[in-house]
Amino acid sequence: MHKKITPKKIIVIGGDGFCGWPTALHLSNLGHRVTIVDNLSRRWIDTQLGANSLTPIATVEDRLTAWTEATGKVIHFECIDAAREFDRLAALLASIRPDTVIHFGEQRAAPYSMKTVTEKRYTVDNNISATHNLLAAVTALGLDPHIVHLGTMGVYGYDDAGLEIPEGYLSVYVPGDDKRIVQRDILYPTNPGSVYHLTKSMDQLLFQFYAKNDLLRITDLHQGIVWGTQTDETRLDERLINRFDYDGDYGTVLNRFLMQAVVGHPLTVHGSGGQTRAFIHIQDTVKCIALAVANPPRPEGRVAILNQMTECHTVRDLAMLIAKLSDARVAFVSNPRNEAAENDLRVSNRTFLDLGLNPITLEAGLLEETRDIAAKYAHRCIPEMIPCVSTWTDRQQPGVVDMGDVA
Amino acid sequence: MHKKITPKKIIVIGGDGFCGWPTALHLSNLGHRVTIVDNLSRRWIDTQLGANSLTPIATVEDRLTAWTEATGKVIHFECIDAAREFDRLAALLASIRPDTVIHFGEQRAAPYSMKTVTEKRYTVDNNISATHNLLAAVTALGLDPHIVHLGTMGVYGYDDAGLEIPEGYLSVYVPGDDKRIVQRDILYPTNPGSVYHLTKSMDQLLFQFYAKNDLLRITDLHQGIVWGTQTDETRLDERLINRFDYDGDYGTVLNRFLMQAVVGHPLTVHGSGGQTRAFIHIQDTVKCIALAVANPPRPEGRVAILNQMTECHTVRDLAMLIAKLSDARVAFVSNPRNEAAENDLRVSNRTFLDLGLNPITLEAGLLEETRDIAAKYAHRCIPEMIPCVSTWTDRQQPGVVDMGDVA
Repeated sequence: MHKKITPKKIIVIGGDGFCGWPTALHLSNLGHRVTIVDNLSRRWIDTQLGANSLTPIATVEDRLTAWTEATGKVIHFECIDAAREFDRLAALLASIRPDTVIHFGEQRAAPYSMKTVTEKRYTVDNNISATHNLLAAVTALGLDPHIVHLGTMGVYGYDDAGLEIPEGYLSVYVPGDDKRIVQRDILYPTNPGSVYHLTKSMDQLLFQFYAKNDLLRITDLHQGIVWGTQTDETRLDERLINRFDYDGDYGTVLNRFLMQAVVGHPLTVHGSGGQTRAFIHIQDTVKCIALAVANPPRPEGRVAILNQMTECHTVRDLAMLIAKLSDARVAFVSNPRNEAAENDLRVSNRTFLDLGLNPITLEAGLLEETRDIAAKYAHRCIPEMIPCVSTWTDRQQPGVVDMGDVA
Repeated sequence: MHKKITPKKIIVIGGDGFCGWPTALHLSNLGHRVTIVDNLSRRWIDTQLGANSLTPIATVEDRLTAWTEATGKVIHFECIDAAREFDRLAALLASIRPDTVIHFGEQRAAPYSMKTVTEKRYTVDNNISATHNLLAAVTALGLDPHIVHLGTMGVYGYDDAGLEIPEGYLSVYVPGDDKRIVQRDILYPTNPGSVYHLTKSMDQLLFQFYAKNDLLRITDLHQGIVWGTQTDETRLDERLINRFDYDGDYGTVLNRFLMQAVVGHPLTVHGSGGQTRAFIHIQDTVKCIALAVANPPRPEGRVAILNQMTECHTVRDLAMLIAKLSDARVAFVSNPRNEAAENDLRVSNRTFLDLGLNPITLEAGLLEETRDIAAKYAHRCIPEMIPCVSTWTDRQQPGVVDMGDVA
């Protein structure tokens, strides 16, 4: 089924997480030699929040055993904190000398990053140090791996009606001297909406510098909101199942709607629901990353930035779609986020389409997601974890339903 | 002499350093109630490098005693690491409830930030955490101080011939839908030239976010290369004297030229010396900061960015000027930095001129600097500390003179 590939030595930092785990499996399945680096922080945060993955996720050890039993392939695991254990990270890089390093090793929930000053500080310190440690280590070691980083569509901000969002760079015209107009290709001016998104904007500057100064080869993937749970590989054994987050901090909008529908709670739309967002299925995420791994940029001093998303929807339309599928009601609640109430969004994802990506559509995949995940594991749901209680500032209110408002 | 001012409670983070110390004295002299926060890291780095300030700087305790003896005024001091002692920083902010916080608390030498992986990591982790801790703390405490940050001209980069560098924001035109042209005011696209400058670019994004989300009032001062040593206040007593750095890591180009002239060494120009840079005298730095303190921006979600510089020169012209003053020779050596060999530079500093700044010119101040500082304290110079040995990548060579090349 898969084309013949040249096996690469690949390190997946954050390879135990929601995107990292199915990526590691997919790359291993393609024949690459995969080592996961993870400090298991995502599991610890579940414990801290009193939350859980709706799907029962196995220990790393059981996951890796199951993978070998299912496929005969081996994935290695190193429990290393990329932000705080620089020496161990550098020693591993020096020993493996990877062809590719995929960097998912960052705290990735916007609401969690806005929870209190503690989570704000953790998100900044953890994410920036993890990214910079990787860049500084490969530079100091004289290594030349292709670095693939998971960024976010959120760095663009969402107030740019009238412009299609390009892939990372914007062509602008600046009035110069003597009435000349100067054309410049600039990094898209960033407008992050949370401390989490802010760290990905700051990552962009780290990449820009190390690509320019040290000629590192870097691909930054600006990803939309991921939905779906399973991929071809995670379906092979129940111990390989991927996370499904539905809590107010880590659950993305679609998962929380599915969960609310299943437990008979109104779907809680923040504000008017006119926020338009970009989406991608987890199966397409792992395909995109494999495509990025196969197509490293040349060391020309410029980061390759690709938009990793497949379709745009308003939050309101998503709620209506799921309400129709599941006979649920929709409730408009106050928005705990400090963001524009309504926005247009059009995004270029030309590069991945040109490389052959054939996207899974929401319309086609939602029913399976409802039946095989949300309904099947509904007994594991802790309903009080669903509402969004982390607010962006004291001026916002939690997104909790007043049952009088239910439409 | 000074106009009547309303005394403010001011915290100066990094108030023991080269810019911070004369700023603290100047603000105290104006009648403000000043508390210095410093972890004394700059003194520790001297020890680490085996370097020293050419001028004999007193201990913090002796400095503060001398200040009170000279003026009857009191400056308080707290030994706190803003990057690593968040709880102590927050407790101090809660107790003082400052009107203004001036943030100099960052590692500020570009060559030091490029020395080895250890200094790169220290610079990123220290500078980003210090800035973010301050922003997160005042937000969590519900305080509303005006935050004045010392940024750098270096965030702009130096490859922008044909455009005057504006104050922080650039007006650009973007081709939009239906052949419409959309006008945008964007944060100037950043192109930092070292890990140090990179951290100041990243700081800009932290400020942008907290100004937007939490309506913090922030002034970011993009400063040129500072020269000169003494201010009206540091001249009052020898124990108040300011630092004069001349070593290859912390000494800026002008100080190193002065030092080389005094010890009879050729002035070492990196590359062709065609690099054009912006300069400001330390006396004007403290005046600019007092002007910024007196003119906080309104809480409108936008950071006030001011260019804090007064004149531009090429490195070659500086060398020729000092050679003429001191009968020294000039040597062109390899450039340890990864930077453009030649560049134009024109910078807008309209805001400070409009606020009444009357700059000290290099031409007028250099002779005093040579006579009262470089020559007077020449006996304290460690000549082998002068050359620049920190290189930007393995492709660069240290900026060391080959005596055969001396012009």
